[in-house]
Amino acid sequence: LAHSNNVRVILDGVFNHCGRGFMAFNDLMENQEYSPYKDWFHVHHFPVNAYANPETTDYDAWWGFSSLPKLNTQNPGVRQFIFDVARYWIEQGADGWRLDVPNEIDDDLFWEEFRHVVKKANRDAYLVGEIWDGDPRWVGEQHFDGLLNYPLRMSLIDLMNGKIHVSDFAKQIDSLLSLYPRENTYAMYLPLGSHDTERILSLLDDSVEKVKLSYLFLFTFPGAPGIYYGDEIGMTGGKDPDCRKAFVWKEEQWNRELLEWMKTLISLRKDQTVLRRGDFKVVEVLDKENCYAYSRSLDGAHCLVVLNAGNSRRYLKLRVGNLWKDGRVVRNLLGDNEYIIANDSITITINAWEGVVIS
Amino acid sequence: LAHSNNVRVILDGVFNHCGRGFMAFNDLMENQEYSPYKDWFHVHHFPVNAYANPETTDYDAWWGFSSLPKLNTQNPGVRQFIFDVARYWIEQGADGWRLDVPNEIDDDLFWEEFRHVVKKANRDAYLVGEIWDGDPRWVGEQHFDGLLNYPLRMSLIDLMNGKIHVSDFAKQIDSLLSLYPRENTYAMYLPLGSHDTERILSLLDDSVEKVKLSYLFLFTFPGAPGIYYGDEIGMTGGKDPDCRKAFVWKEEQWNRELLEWMKTLISLRKDQTVLRRGDFKVVEVLDKENCYAYSRSLDGAHCLVVLNAGNSRRYLKLRVGNLWKDGRVVRNLLGDNEYIIANDSITITINAWEGVVIS
Repeated sequence: LAHSNNVRVILDGVFNHCGRGFMAFNDLMENQEYSPYKDWFHVHHFPVNAYANPETTDYDAWWGFSSLPKLNTQNPGVRQFIFDVARYWIEQGADGWRLDVPNEIDDDLFWEEFRHVVKKANRDAYLVGEIWDGDPRWVGEQHFDGLLNYPLRMSLIDLMNGKIHVSDFAKQIDSLLSLYPRENTYAMYLPLGSHDTERILSLLDDSVEKVKLSYLFLFTFPGAPGIYYGDEIGMTGGKDPDCRKAFVWKEEQWNRELLEWMKTLISLRKDQTVLRRGDFKVVEVLDKENCYAYSRSLDGAHCLVVLNAGNSRRYLKLRVGNLWKDGRVVRNLLGDNEYIIANDSITITINAWEGVVIS
Repeated sequence: LAHSNNVRVILDGVFNHCGRGFMAFNDLMENQEYSPYKDWFHVHHFPVNAYANPETTDYDAWWGFSSLPKLNTQNPGVRQFIFDVARYWIEQGADGWRLDVPNEIDDDLFWEEFRHVVKKANRDAYLVGEIWDGDPRWVGEQHFDGLLNYPLRMSLIDLMNGKIHVSDFAKQIDSLLSLYPRENTYAMYLPLGSHDTERILSLLDDSVEKVKLSYLFLFTFPGAPGIYYGDEIGMTGGKDPDCRKAFVWKEEQWNRELLEWMKTLISLRKDQTVLRRGDFKVVEVLDKENCYAYSRSLDGAHCLVVLNAGNSRRYLKLRVGNLWKDGRVVRNLLGDNEYIIANDSITITINAWEGVVIS
């Protein structure tokens, strides 16, 4: 059904630990040291009691939660089981795996074989690791196509909340861009929020304009922009479980402005190949004006993105000689403004918290 | 594979209760009163703790065993789940269901629908109930094709152990035969033992000849004779778990005499359609001689079975005028003896604990 609507489906795979209800763990509880699955886990002593306390010392568990026994991924049976699961769902048509805390399976060979199994079933399958820090170890031909780019998100939130200057932001972005091979940078998953974080609207003081500007950045940056369900209609929420509330189905409660904005951004990115595949280059870093300008370029086509991360309307003159020649008329793809390139520069007026995409 | 070797497969279905590892029960343990499966069981109070004690009062369990929660078969979700399982395996090629303690689901409509679902998937599928008593309620068009005929087994064991006279045995057999419609009598499953009983060889004082005679009765009686694994090589064993020991694979330890006897009985029954489908009729009940004679008849073919359930060799003259005419030569299918019918009778000599099948 998804594929017939041009939607691809990435499954969330949790292979570091399992639930107490998992067949093998249940067998362990029933048969204890006689269970054929006793080496599938890290058992410290028998008998194993999984329900005595919220935290357990009977066996290794994810963050000690007795409900989440850690799998012993050194065990050949466990490995085969997981690889079979990985292959099975790809064969069923899944388009990839989002891997839950994969760095907690601290085993390069494990993930190399995992990748091999998946790519053999579908060479276009997408592997993305839920790894919170930037870390080149986990990105590339032996591991994942991309990671969840949480560092990028943090930098952006800090910029929006005034915690860092534009120049700090620019440095962090530069550093992130140099961390991975180009093809992986373009395969990173870009989140502004998830079930593990406060919602972006709440984090940005319920400022719809800041949320709009943040998503604009995401949609014009290299990588795969992600929209956490409900962000597009203005849902708010603090930390787990507040950020995991059910989707609001009552349309009266939707923020229409945000929803239209998201649709605009999606169309924009779909229309402009350059925003998906183009090279990224910083054009201007203006600390005093709180403005940040960068270009995306592909096969002679260019987009210039300018973000005003501040409370004041700005009048900017940006040098763009390497993008367009003098006399060229360009326009803001998010508005009606037109500009003429003169003296290798473009002159624009940009409102507080506004972003423009010029082409 | 089984079908390609002319073997049919009957699955053992336990639908009265489940294990603690069953998905729905596990969800109940994890989510307690918030579980969507909370009405799938008979919960007396929350929180439910399934691992605290071997016996539980938190919920109904089979014989109180906390490891075996009873399913609430009144719940539409549970019913649908079970019916889907029933249908699925028949569609996968299973040839029927052996239903574990089905009378503990005291619900005629449940089993009527179960039967409907199974027979719709395969009208030849076999339904046999593990019901220990004779009870016509559970046999017929609304329920099961047959039951496990444990009462027959008990009568036979009592006869072999000298606890009852041949006439008592004959009366019990008569009564069992009148209990069900003919087609169901011929679809009864005839056990001499199971994982729930002491093994027949142990029950009959390790007397191989008694075991041989008992199985001969089984293979010449209406219904489906069953061999409990290992009985055919002379395994012994007391009550559970002693009767559930692993099969003895070392052929040096096999009782070859028993094994050959079983093969002979199987061939005999395969060769003689009359033993499978023929009418059953008592010919003689000889208390003094400990002998019991009956005939099986089909389309003019007859078999006369005589059992000597005693320690003495006997010389018998049996009236068989309705089977064969004077002058007819018949022979013992289990030996070389030939007999001539004279004066509407047959005269035979039968050893202690011997059985003959004459045709």
